[in-house]
Amino acid sequence: MTRLFLRLFFDGAMLGPGKVELLERIRARGSIAAAGREMGMSYRRAWSLVEEMNAAFAEPLVTSTRGGPGGGGAEVTPAGETVITRYHALHAAATAAGAADLAALQAMLREPGDMSRE
Amino acid sequence: MTRLFLRLFFDGAMLGPGKVELLERIRARGSIAAAGREMGMSYRRAWSLVEEMNAAFAEPLVTSTRGGPGGGGAEVTPAGETVITRYHALHAAATAAGAADLAALQAMLREPGDMSRE
Repeated sequence: MTRLFLRLFFDGAMLGPGKVELLERIRARGSIAAAGREMGMSYRRAWSLVEEMNAAFAEPLVTSTRGGPGGGGAEVTPAGETVITRYHALHAAATAAGAADLAALQAMLREPGDMSRE
Repeated sequence: MTRLFLRLFFDGAMLGPGKVELLERIRARGSIAAAGREMGMSYRRAWSLVEEMNAAFAEPLVTSTRGGPGGGGAEVTPAGETVITRYHALHAAATAAGAADLAALQAMLREPGDMSRE
């Protein structure tokens, strides 16, 4: 099926599917490094994306502890949960609202594919 | 204001704001090279994007004549016009449908900015 890639450009901040997926994987794994690894990202890259998000939003989206006996860990905050939820709601609303235009564009392709397939 | 970046992933084809802008500039300038130049693109890059679009859609979006006394030129076809129109309609519908979520995300930023500003 046609997928919609949606990135938000705020003044000086950007939010797209990559960062949202990173938040979700941090929530699932409790670790920035593990989340990044699952996405084929270096540890450094994953940390830098988290720092970028934490700097852009008034409240941090991820909190983390480094080292310690448990090896440190990371948690998605309530603000982070809200961002995940709002992003998906936005994506769903956009896809629904644009369905007719999406279908019309898809029908114009050389190989229109199967709209019912995900 | 918050801008929504919207890219469509069809099976094997991609359509985003860059290609749509290129189509619009080709329409305005009657030349692929001039349109690409305005966007800071090499001649080669602009041509390759046009070829990609023409290959993906059942009908070409751009027709062109090379050389000749007038130096050749390019035209956006009716199919190309439809793609431009549908893309903008999709973007407008998505932005309207997602307005509440966009505003909520923007309000969570450290510097929420001015929603009334374009």
